[in-house]
Amino acid sequence: MRSRFKPWAADLIDTHPEIVIPDPEQKKGKWQEVFGNKHPLHIEAGTGKGRFIIGMAKANPHINYIGIELFDSVIVTALETVLEEEHGIPNLRLLKVNAKKIAEYFDKGEVDRLYLNFSDPWPKKRHAKRRLTHESFLELYEAVLPENGEVHFKTDNRKLFEYSLTSISEYGMLLKEVSLDLHDNEPEWNIMTEYEEKFSKKGQPIYRMEAQFSVS
Amino acid sequence: MRSRFKPWAADLIDTHPEIVIPDPEQKKGKWQEVFGNKHPLHIEAGTGKGRFIIGMAKANPHINYIGIELFDSVIVTALETVLEEEHGIPNLRLLKVNAKKIAEYFDKGEVDRLYLNFSDPWPKKRHAKRRLTHESFLELYEAVLPENGEVHFKTDNRKLFEYSLTSISEYGMLLKEVSLDLHDNEPEWNIMTEYEEKFSKKGQPIYRMEAQFSVS
Repeated sequence: MRSRFKPWAADLIDTHPEIVIPDPEQKKGKWQEVFGNKHPLHIEAGTGKGRFIIGMAKANPHINYIGIELFDSVIVTALETVLEEEHGIPNLRLLKVNAKKIAEYFDKGEVDRLYLNFSDPWPKKRHAKRRLTHESFLELYEAVLPENGEVHFKTDNRKLFEYSLTSISEYGMLLKEVSLDLHDNEPEWNIMTEYEEKFSKKGQPIYRMEAQFSVS
Repeated sequence: MRSRFKPWAADLIDTHPEIVIPDPEQKKGKWQEVFGNKHPLHIEAGTGKGRFIIGMAKANPHINYIGIELFDSVIVTALETVLEEEHGIPNLRLLKVNAKKIAEYFDKGEVDRLYLNFSDPWPKKRHAKRRLTHESFLELYEAVLPENGEVHFKTDNRKLFEYSLTSISEYGMLLKEVSLDLHDNEPEWNIMTEYEEKFSKKGQPIYRMEAQFSVS
């Protein structure tokens, strides 16, 4: 997700290393020290403006969250939202890095769950490798999740969801839950992303799955 | 699928044992003799009035088809349609039996593909065992299909499809193809069922999957 160029974004990010962690590879295996507790760690790849991960962190104080987003111009909005909170959000950190490199930042099993929300569909076949549910990304997630670790994925994009169902199945993962219209009887625990609100207001179905790596 | 009571249906069925095979357990392992060739055999569980299986049989003369349907009052319509064909449909047979008993009628590997179309959704949780994609049915299909045999499934019922995706995944089957709106860019090979035409005309999406048993 890109927004207009914000030349001041990099400066604001640099002045808040307590929230946007500047050297995540040095924290590998030590995230419990960063958070100062042993709570489970859930991460989101492609956090965008942060509405989902911030909502989750506020709703679940006994889970630690890390949002990963490459682009200054959008992650800065997440940072601003955190800064507006009177007491901050102690169980949330942000990483301004490429999700492709997560195995450099987390040990095997250090991440308890991974979220993907409204990822770029990369509709052209020759770009399939860039989809966050492509086999090459599933390998990365498996490298940081425990055995039986889960990936929770939401999208409004039908073709990306169709692709993801087969990609995840062919990787050998289990589909634990599937919803083909999440907002028909929306679960109370659901936290909407910016995109989700926009698309569900238009009456478009939101697709969601929970998939699990299986013990090999 | 039930229709109004047709007292004459049983008689018409009994007078056409060359189409509605009366003793299928005696044909187990011998279906190539029944058809007089060694073409692949595809079966449909829950054939209803037969529009799908008849359409498939006419479109694919080098594949043998068997439609399975328990109720006289609907299978008789399939029989009547076959009888209306000037030269019959040599690569089609019908079985008026319960799909639960298919392992009594076919040897392991004797069936090359199994179709499920617009099966009863059995929406109540306590009736889940009756859904044709319940684990207990998948076991039956596995007993008659070869290793890597495929089940092709279409429905307009979202909740049945959601259930089936997880049921099939948890059984250890692979999802090879998934469409969440078959009639958006309908494949040329698609043969519509009665239900399918009715629901897609209303603008409801038709869901479809191809799932494969994996080598254990």
